[in-house]
Amino acid sequence: MKFIPPANSTQTTLLAYSSVRDYVDVLKSISLHAGYDTPETCLNLVTDGALVGEILRAKDELVSSRLKYVIVIGIGGSALGTKAVYDALRPSSGFATGSVTPEILFLTTSHPGKLEEVRRILESLQPDEFILCLISKSGTTLETISNFEALARYPSVRSALAARLVVISDDNSQLFRESRAKKYRTFAIPRPVGGRYSVFSAVGLVPLAFAGFNIEALTAGARGVFHSFCLTEGVENNMSLVSAAVAHDQYKKGARVFDLFVFSPELESLGKWNRQLIAESLGKQIVKGETRSPIGMTPTVSVATDDLHSVAQLYLANPCDRYETFLSVAHSVRDANRSESAETVFLADKSLGRTAFEDITPAIKSAVISAFVQNGNAVSEIIFERVDEVELGAFMQFRMIETMILGKLLGVNAFDQPNIETYKKETRKILGL
Amino acid sequence: MKFIPPANSTQTTLLAYSSVRDYVDVLKSISLHAGYDTPETCLNLVTDGALVGEILRAKDELVSSRLKYVIVIGIGGSALGTKAVYDALRPSSGFATGSVTPEILFLTTSHPGKLEEVRRILESLQPDEFILCLISKSGTTLETISNFEALARYPSVRSALAARLVVISDDNSQLFRESRAKKYRTFAIPRPVGGRYSVFSAVGLVPLAFAGFNIEALTAGARGVFHSFCLTEGVENNMSLVSAAVAHDQYKKGARVFDLFVFSPELESLGKWNRQLIAESLGKQIVKGETRSPIGMTPTVSVATDDLHSVAQLYLANPCDRYETFLSVAHSVRDANRSESAETVFLADKSLGRTAFEDITPAIKSAVISAFVQNGNAVSEIIFERVDEVELGAFMQFRMIETMILGKLLGVNAFDQPNIETYKKETRKILGL
Repeated sequence: MKFIPPANSTQTTLLAYSSVRDYVDVLKSISLHAGYDTPETCLNLVTDGALVGEILRAKDELVSSRLKYVIVIGIGGSALGTKAVYDALRPSSGFATGSVTPEILFLTTSHPGKLEEVRRILESLQPDEFILCLISKSGTTLETISNFEALARYPSVRSALAARLVVISDDNSQLFRESRAKKYRTFAIPRPVGGRYSVFSAVGLVPLAFAGFNIEALTAGARGVFHSFCLTEGVENNMSLVSAAVAHDQYKKGARVFDLFVFSPELESLGKWNRQLIAESLGKQIVKGETRSPIGMTPTVSVATDDLHSVAQLYLANPCDRYETFLSVAHSVRDANRSESAETVFLADKSLGRTAFEDITPAIKSAVISAFVQNGNAVSEIIFERVDEVELGAFMQFRMIETMILGKLLGVNAFDQPNIETYKKETRKILGL
Repeated sequence: MKFIPPANSTQTTLLAYSSVRDYVDVLKSISLHAGYDTPETCLNLVTDGALVGEILRAKDELVSSRLKYVIVIGIGGSALGTKAVYDALRPSSGFATGSVTPEILFLTTSHPGKLEEVRRILESLQPDEFILCLISKSGTTLETISNFEALARYPSVRSALAARLVVISDDNSQLFRESRAKKYRTFAIPRPVGGRYSVFSAVGLVPLAFAGFNIEALTAGARGVFHSFCLTEGVENNMSLVSAAVAHDQYKKGARVFDLFVFSPELESLGKWNRQLIAESLGKQIVKGETRSPIGMTPTVSVATDDLHSVAQLYLANPCDRYETFLSVAHSVRDANRSESAETVFLADKSLGRTAFEDITPAIKSAVISAFVQNGNAVSEIIFERVDEVELGAFMQFRMIETMILGKLLGVNAFDQPNIETYKKETRKILGL
C-alpha cells in the first residue's frame, strides 16, 4: 500500500506533529507491551498470536468442507469490517454466478424479509453446513438480539445452537456470561476496544477465518503498518501521521466533506467501514460551559467510474468544501505499441477496437485526478499493490491510527459516542422494553 | 406517498413562491401540450401513451417465459433509475435465494471481472433467454460503448445482436443512426431530455417492462404527482413546491449536506438515483465576470437502521450543516394489547419475547426522528403507502419537479453539467481516442 499526500505536505506534518508529539509517543509505546488497557491498545490486536491461535483451533473443530454459510448477526462495528474484507475478496462480487463456499450472510438491521430469507436457507441445511456468529459488544444491541432471538424461535435453528453458535461479546456482558453458563462457544472482545476499532478482534477474525479468508495475512498487513508507524525515522515519512496532518489542515481550511473515491466497486464496503470510523470517532461536540461547538466532517464514499456520472459535476464545481482521497489498485503498465485490434460493431467505435478494455478505468483515473488537482483540490492517493488480505489489513490499521491522531488534533475523544444514547433509550421506551 | 415538511413551512413556501411564480407557471403549462421542446418537458414522458404502447409491443415480440436476463449496458442516468426500481421491487433483495426471472444485470463501469461474469452467463444461454439494452444518450459514453464492444467480440453474443439487441439513444447520435441502418431495434430518447431526467423515457421503461415490472403503474404514479402539482389550490399544499422551498431555506441557513435517510435497505438505490439528480443538477458555479461562486449541496444516502450505528453520532452532534429527510414505508399499527410471547434463548432478552419483530424498525424510526427534532434539526418525512411501482413513480416525478424549482431558486441551470467535460477529454487523449 502506498499513500501519496498532496504536494508540499511536509510543513503541514511538522506543524501538526509539534502539537501531538506526546500522543504519538503514547501510540508508539503501545507496541512495547501486549494487552488491552486503553482504547488505543486495539492496535495490539494484530500482534495477539493467542487470539489467532484460538480462532484457528475453533475453525478446525467447526469448519469442514461441508460448511456453506457463515451467518453474521451483528450491526455497525460488529459487521462493517467483516463485510469490507468479504466484499473486497469474494470472487463473485455483484452477480450471482460462481458463488463461493462458504458464503457470509449478514443479518444487520431488523428486516422481516431478510430474516425470512436466512431462515429459509437455514431450514434447508444440515447443522454442519452453517455457523451462527452472534456479535454484540454490549450484548444488548436491539437489532442484533432481536434478529438472533427471532431466528432461534425456529426449532431447526434452536436445536443447532449448542453445536453451531459462536457468541462474541464483551466478557462483562450478561450475554457473554449467560453464553458461558449455557456452554456456547464464546470469544471475548477486550473491554477497552470499541466497536469501530474491533475488526482485528474476534469480531472480524472469527467469521473471516471460518469463511476461509487468511486472517494471518490480514493481521500481518496491519502489523506492518503499525511497525512502520513506530519505527519510521522522520515524521514526514510517517504515513499515518502525514495523513492525519493533511486531513486536519483540510478541515481547518473549511473542508467539511471527506470523500473516499474508490476505483474498484469491490472496495465500496471498505469505504463504508472507513465512513463509520470517521463519523463516529470525529463527529462530536466540544462542550465549554453553556456552549456546544460541533466538530466533525461528513465522510462519503464514491465509487468510480459510476459516480463520475453522478456526483463528479458537483465535486468539480465545488472544490473548496471537500477533501478528496482516491483509492485504487495498481495497474500494470502495458506496451503502448501493442497492436491489439478488433473489428467493432459500430463504425463510430472504431478507434476503441485498438484499446485494451483493462486500460479504460486507469485512464479515467489519471484524467480525473488531474482534473481535481487543476481545479485546486487537495488530493491524496492510496494505492493497493493488489486486493488481498495484506493490503486490506494495512489500510484498516493505517486508518485507525490516522483517526486517533486526527481526533487528538481536533481535540475530541475519538472513542466515545455520547449523542446516540437518547434515541436508543426512547426506542426501548416505545417498545416497552 | 405523503410528504411532511418541517413545522411552520407555510411562510417559507409563500416567500419562495413569490420569486419563482413565473417558472412554476411554465412547469404547469407543460402538461397542456404533449411533446418535448425544453428540458423541463421530460415531465411529459409520463403522459406519452405512444411510448408505452411501443414498448409493450416490443415486449410482446421479444419477451417470452424463457427470458432469464435483461442486460442493461449503461451508466449514470442510463442505469440509476432502472436500478432504483429494480432493487426496490425484486423480491429477493440482498441474498441469493429465490432468485427472480428475469433478472436485470447492470454493466455500468468498465470492469473486467463483471464483464467476464456477464459473458459467462450469456454463453450458457439461448438467444431467447436474454436481451441486451445498450443505453447511451450521446451514443459515445466511454464505459458503455467499451462494455458493449468488448461483449460483442464473443461470437455467441455477436450472432445474437440482430435479434436480441435494443439500442436506446438520442436519435441524433451516430450510434442511433448506425443502429437504424443495421436494423437493430431502437428507441429514441427525446433530445431535450437529459440523462438524469430520463427514467420515464425508454431508458428506464424498456428494461423495466422487459423484466416484468408494471410501467403503466410507474408512469401513473408519476402522472398523479404531476397532475396534483398543476392543479393543487394553495401553494402551501403543493408538495413539490413546499419541498423545494424548505430545501432552499435550509441551504440559505447553511445546510450543505442533504441526507436522505431511507428506512428500508431496498430503497438505497432509489436514494442513489436521487443523489445524482441533486448533485448534477444543483452542483454548479455561478460565473460573474472573473468570479466563480460555487453553489450546491452534497447529497448523501443513509440506510437505517445500519447507518444509525455508523453516521448517526455525527449527524446528531452536528445538526446545523445537514438537512435531513426520512423516507419510510407506512407501518400498520398493531394491537398494543396483543400478547404474543415466546421463550427467549437468553434471560437477558426476556422482555423482547413479547415484542413483535416487525415493530422494532418503526419504533427506532420514531425515536430517531424525535431525537433529530429535539436536536434542532429541520426534518422532512416522505412516507410510502407501500413499495410498488405507483409510489416509486410518484417519488421520482416529485423529486424531479422539486429539483427544477430548487435550481431556479438557487439561480443555476438544473440541466447542464459543464464541469465534467475536461476529464472526459483528457481520458480520450490518454487512450489515444
